Amino acid sequence: MTNILPVLDHAIAGVPASLERLFELVRIKSISTDPAFKAECRRAAEWLVAELRSLGFDATVRDTPGHPMVVAHHDGAKPDAPHVLFYGHYDVQPVDPLNLWDNDPFEPAVRDAAGGRRVITGRGTSDDKGQLMTFVEACRAYKETVGALPCRVSILFEGEEESGSPSLKPFLEANAAELKADFALVCDTNMWDGDTPAISGGLRGLVGEEIVIKAADRDLHSGYFGGAAANPIHILADILAGLHDETGRVTLEGFYDGVEETPTQIKAAWETLGKTAESFLGEVGLSIPSGEKGRSVLELTWARPTAEVNGITGGYTGEGFKTVIAAEASAKVSFRLVGKQDPAQVRDAFRAYVRSKIPADCSVTFHAHGGSPAIQLPYDSTLLNKAKSALSDEWPNPAVIIGMGGSIPIVGDFQKMLGMDSLLVGFGLADDRIHSPNEKYELRSFEKGIRSWVRILAALAAR
Amino acid sequence: MTNILPVLDHAIAGVPASLERLFELVRIKSISTDPAFKAECRRAAEWLVAELRSLGFDATVRDTPGHPMVVAHHDGAKPDAPHVLFYGHYDVQPVDPLNLWDNDPFEPAVRDAAGGRRVITGRGTSDDKGQLMTFVEACRAYKETVGALPCRVSILFEGEEESGSPSLKPFLEANAAELKADFALVCDTNMWDGDTPAISGGLRGLVGEEIVIKAADRDLHSGYFGGAAANPIHILADILAGLHDETGRVTLEGFYDGVEETPTQIKAAWETLGKTAESFLGEVGLSIPSGEKGRSVLELTWARPTAEVNGITGGYTGEGFKTVIAAEASAKVSFRLVGKQDPAQVRDAFRAYVRSKIPADCSVTFHAHGGSPAIQLPYDSTLLNKAKSALSDEWPNPAVIIGMGGSIPIVGDFQKMLGMDSLLVGFGLADDRIHSPNEKYELRSFEKGIRSWVRILAALAAR
Repeated sequence: MTNILPVLDHAIAGVPASLERLFELVRIKSISTDPAFKAECRRAAEWLVAELRSLGFDATVRDTPGHPMVVAHHDGAKPDAPHVLFYGHYDVQPVDPLNLWDNDPFEPAVRDAAGGRRVITGRGTSDDKGQLMTFVEACRAYKETVGALPCRVSILFEGEEESGSPSLKPFLEANAAELKADFALVCDTNMWDGDTPAISGGLRGLVGEEIVIKAADRDLHSGYFGGAAANPIHILADILAGLHDETGRVTLEGFYDGVEETPTQIKAAWETLGKTAESFLGEVGLSIPSGEKGRSVLELTWARPTAEVNGITGGYTGEGFKTVIAAEASAKVSFRLVGKQDPAQVRDAFRAYVRSKIPADCSVTFHAHGGSPAIQLPYDSTLLNKAKSALSDEWPNPAVIIGMGGSIPIVGDFQKMLGMDSLLVGFGLADDRIHSPNEKYELRSFEKGIRSWVRILAALAAR
Repeated sequence: MTNILPVLDHAIAGVPASLERLFELVRIKSISTDPAFKAECRRAAEWLVAELRSLGFDATVRDTPGHPMVVAHHDGAKPDAPHVLFYGHYDVQPVDPLNLWDNDPFEPAVRDAAGGRRVITGRGTSDDKGQLMTFVEACRAYKETVGALPCRVSILFEGEEESGSPSLKPFLEANAAELKADFALVCDTNMWDGDTPAISGGLRGLVGEEIVIKAADRDLHSGYFGGAAANPIHILADILAGLHDETGRVTLEGFYDGVEETPTQIKAAWETLGKTAESFLGEVGLSIPSGEKGRSVLELTWARPTAEVNGITGGYTGEGFKTVIAAEASAKVSFRLVGKQDPAQVRDAFRAYVRSKIPADCSVTFHAHGGSPAIQLPYDSTLLNKAKSALSDEWPNPAVIIGMGGSIPIVGDFQKMLGMDSLLVGFGLADDRIHSPNEKYELRSFEKGIRSWVRILAALAAR
């Protein structure tokens, strides 16, 4: 393994210059959702291409129907090292309301903050320009010290992440051969806390279903028909109440197929993070975990599947009262998936269950709303463990492998379209105010982020 | 008992003149809900007072903040006969859309109809001018033949029934001593069918409750919190699903206190009416009774209590999908009561049940929407049986004692404010199109309705 100490030292020594480059990028107003900033978006892409070319990358601006992509390639020093695709996005959120900003969002600076911290202020410093530049500056540190990158590196910078990524899938499809690497590095997430780096090892999948239950052919008077006519709200309530048993488990046939228990050491590591039910749920005014009994809130939200009713409606819902028996009632239900749960199988099991509860004189219609499997790096994967060890060397606390309850579309797209796992490592903090006024990025995140990528690239290249 | 044959004969002989009087009343456009017809309402009241005075009643127009009441009194021939209060209403529904009427709604006439029937057309012919005039004309038949009424008769005609009866309760309260009789005769209901008169022996009571369940202090992302945070829709579904057991019975503690089984002979009489689940529910596209197992649809809707969810809402209910865990969810629930069920006890039992299902970190609020007990004449009451026998003498088929699933406010008010039972007898048919264009009243209903009251008054006066 390359001696990376000179590279790490160089990274620190180069921070003032690295910051100047980041500032140049932040000053470009690449607000993707506002057509007025179309030229600025292109300018950001061109700036990145120039930057990457200066590092020896074969970098190009690639047109799309929307804002352009940046694609770049660089060989690695060791032919047997893995080929990685780094992903970030150069577009940013709008800055309104401008009067809530303490400083010009497009005039970045390093400023003092509470607790003796130093922060880089400006739109995009955390989401995602500061983050993506940690990787670019790590590459620079390698190039300026050892003259080479330890791995073969491709880069994809998107310019539409903040506006729904309309061009991403077609672009991945059209350029699959070029973009396919051994795995992706995605830098658009947070640390666990300021001292504890985090790797997102899993993202839950999602199945959405809307059901509409129809009973009588019109709304009925509950005096005349009540007690004899089917009430679709009753049928719906029965169905939804039956989705969980008394231990909080989902009752659908085969629902837990493909769900594995979280390894003991992972659960033990989560225990040390100090997220109790009270602290996790206390943020939103709750205190008692509602799901499967005997599991921590982190396990429940990171590693366990769920069934949630996201919306329900039926009958009279206005002011006052109306003694009506509704003709129909409906609910939107979603399932968060983990492990190898099959979205199609879950959907089928749900529909079969619902159908089994519909009286012969009533009917149900289903509307599918999306379905994607969970994404889970095996907890014992080499990729995960190399990254974990590299990050643990850089930061005060060891890195934690966390789950993410929601989904990140790019990770699913890489998996589905390029057959490629993603390693999610980022250095944002929960209080970075991304998408809000006064966005900031910790100077420490920028400095140690650069050094983290130096370490990760070295670790990945090592046998 | 007076020989009533001459009275019955005179009633028939007098029909042409009776019709002329009814037509005069129908021509008065007493639409209570439209202020433009305020003077017409008063004219109807004055017309009725003049009519009643001509029959020897002590009749007066009584002002209210809205349209006037008509109150009239007449002594009975036999001092030991009961004192009855007859109720009807002289106001009518609006007539729009006028272009859907085949004839001028305020130019009544007897016209031929399908099946050789003769019908009286015009607004209010069935609801309720034609009906109330059956009673007035019965009184006339007595006066013009025997010169007296068999019972002491008071009359209350209201002019605001079609616009919510705002003046009724204050008027009853202010004139309780004057209006209190042994029981009320209410003529504003239908026959079972054209050959079968009906007496409504029971009206179900009603308790309305709205519950709002609050969980987190804001809407949550189901990816981040799903599986750990309480979902108020799940709590609500559980509560609603638990309201009935698998036999369709309501599970609330003490819910069936005061509910008695319907007598076998009454159930047998209902069987003969030929209302099957298929025919009753088939009208609205259903076929399978949904309530308590092993009971007929007529028993379920006339004589059994219910719990019905009339409305439910929570979370995202718009187009598409939103993976939200709602902060709150709510439902409107009503209970139809029978027998001696106590509305307050039912409400308390429901609230206690709901509270028992609310997790400690969630909350529920209740909103009461009305509560009234059932009204039930004992099936063996003399009043009921005398009326039944009188009606059975007049019509081709014996009279049936039916239930009414809904409530009629006046009956509750007479019970509550004047301590007076009501006998509900009417000669409308389900196809009379009350409240709609082309309202009609069967000529036969008018003729035999007059004769029915002749018979009922005689029966009531008999020892």
